[in-house]
Amino acid sequence: MAKILTLTLNPALDLTVRVAHLQPGDVNRSQAMLTHAAGKGVNVAQVLADLGHTLTVSGFLGEDNQHAFNALFARRGFVDAFIRVPGETRSNIKLAEDDGRVTDINGPGPQVSEAAQQALLDTLDLIAASHDAVVVAGSLPRGVSPQWLYELLLRLKTMGLKVILDTSGEALKHGLNAGPWLIKPNTEELSDALGADISSLASQVAAATRLHAQGVEHVVISQGAEGVNWFSHGPTWHALPPKVSVASTVGAGDSLLAGMLHGLLSGHSPEQTLRTATAIAAMAVTQIGFGISDRAQLATLERGVRVHPLTEEQEASS
Amino acid sequence: MAKILTLTLNPALDLTVRVAHLQPGDVNRSQAMLTHAAGKGVNVAQVLADLGHTLTVSGFLGEDNQHAFNALFARRGFVDAFIRVPGETRSNIKLAEDDGRVTDINGPGPQVSEAAQQALLDTLDLIAASHDAVVVAGSLPRGVSPQWLYELLLRLKTMGLKVILDTSGEALKHGLNAGPWLIKPNTEELSDALGADISSLASQVAAATRLHAQGVEHVVISQGAEGVNWFSHGPTWHALPPKVSVASTVGAGDSLLAGMLHGLLSGHSPEQTLRTATAIAAMAVTQIGFGISDRAQLATLERGVRVHPLTEEQEASS
Repeated sequence: MAKILTLTLNPALDLTVRVAHLQPGDVNRSQAMLTHAAGKGVNVAQVLADLGHTLTVSGFLGEDNQHAFNALFARRGFVDAFIRVPGETRSNIKLAEDDGRVTDINGPGPQVSEAAQQALLDTLDLIAASHDAVVVAGSLPRGVSPQWLYELLLRLKTMGLKVILDTSGEALKHGLNAGPWLIKPNTEELSDALGADISSLASQVAAATRLHAQGVEHVVISQGAEGVNWFSHGPTWHALPPKVSVASTVGAGDSLLAGMLHGLLSGHSPEQTLRTATAIAAMAVTQIGFGISDRAQLATLERGVRVHPLTEEQEASS
Repeated sequence: MAKILTLTLNPALDLTVRVAHLQPGDVNRSQAMLTHAAGKGVNVAQVLADLGHTLTVSGFLGEDNQHAFNALFARRGFVDAFIRVPGETRSNIKLAEDDGRVTDINGPGPQVSEAAQQALLDTLDLIAASHDAVVVAGSLPRGVSPQWLYELLLRLKTMGLKVILDTSGEALKHGLNAGPWLIKPNTEELSDALGADISSLASQVAAATRLHAQGVEHVVISQGAEGVNWFSHGPTWHALPPKVSVASTVGAGDSLLAGMLHGLLSGHSPEQTLRTATAIAAMAVTQIGFGISDRAQLATLERGVRVHPLTEEQEASS
């Protein structure tokens, strides 16, 4: 099993609020409010821990509402290397109504000072190199520039680490220049970062070729229910997940990423790696949360995944 | 200055969320989220501290989200005698939109065990008697019965304490049987607790007479912008606040209560007591929050309060 570091620069405290029917302008009673520690890197770490890996978690955490994070890290046995910053980690409120309607209200995160950014770099200089891989996931908090992210990724690469990047927008655009080892954007995120439409397979092949030249070894493009395309130096693979009933897509992308990293670090075949990763993502979709609670269900889902290499003809013809 | 204990059995963490325009079913971005420690007893304590009194605060606090409370108590120099209970103190979310519309979503509180209730009684046995008065304010958390509240009030009375009760519903109904020294319901709350309409002055006189017989010395009935009626063993007083522009009524009732207690414990005349208390409540209405930040403004408001004794003729004719 591997030793993996995940960085969440802008974690979030998810506050899920159940109301029968939201009445704007009125006093509503909530039957339940559930707070949980979230953020892409934290989610990825949880799935990797379910798969048996050893985790260190880091990034920036607001010191005024850290209880849920501390409790999660303790419960999961994560090494906590988060830098505490003044203020509150952002809260993302999810108002879930009985008819299935969900209203999201996403708060602003804390301002991360240059001193805190330096403290994170200093911490990583001490601890990062002892890991097999580092996952940098999620958005950037206020005060952290895409250029700083680029330099962070280069620094981690220079330590000899496999760097996995999962972000979007300007952060992805700048991050790609550092040539991370693996990326996992969806079609829209990658189109946005490259400034080109990559919805067709041919355009994805062209984009992947360009990214490979920049040093990105694994380009994993997630397309929701339409599956995953994985472009590496070997053959290109496509996986189609089994049809599942959707409870919530929360954590599905993070689950896919964790599954890919698990297979690659464990030396599984590409076919097996993609099959398991796709099944873990499908499993996340069937849950309100995510994670691998039921190995038998995972095995069933794995059997339902259709994985095949995309031939050169398919690539050329699309 | 007096030494006052306030009990908040069901405090709340107020989360004020600013959104330009709430779009149900969509992802909304919030420009600001502000968390603050609240609950009637905590609010009363803050106003009493503004007036120069020494405060001890107690009640039940969820141990999983206590930061804002601990920070407030430390900042205000309150003695913290809260019993920590497993889980989270309830959150009350206030969604404030640019057009002034406010949507409240009030969460459930933690379940308070019998062991925690006993721990509070044990703590009060140790500390309560050294105070000049105790304010028991707000609703009851899950697990705490109105009968338990009644016994708590009797216990505090037996210690020789002046007991002030500010609650509603079943809690007020049972609490009245213990004969607290002072109550401050609004018309609706008292009607509800007594099972009789007390909107007319004559019905208030009858209710107050009955409550005096039960041992309630001061019956303060708040009627919002229509002012306050105060029934005690002396003459009955009415106060009409000056007209102010309303920013938020949050904390206005708690301010009135704190002001009444301040005047009574300080030996002020009834007229002065009611005038200042009414002005402090009016001041709360002019603010998003509450509290006495500006003594000159308070003096101006005090001059605008019209206080007069209700004559027997008025009482009889209404």
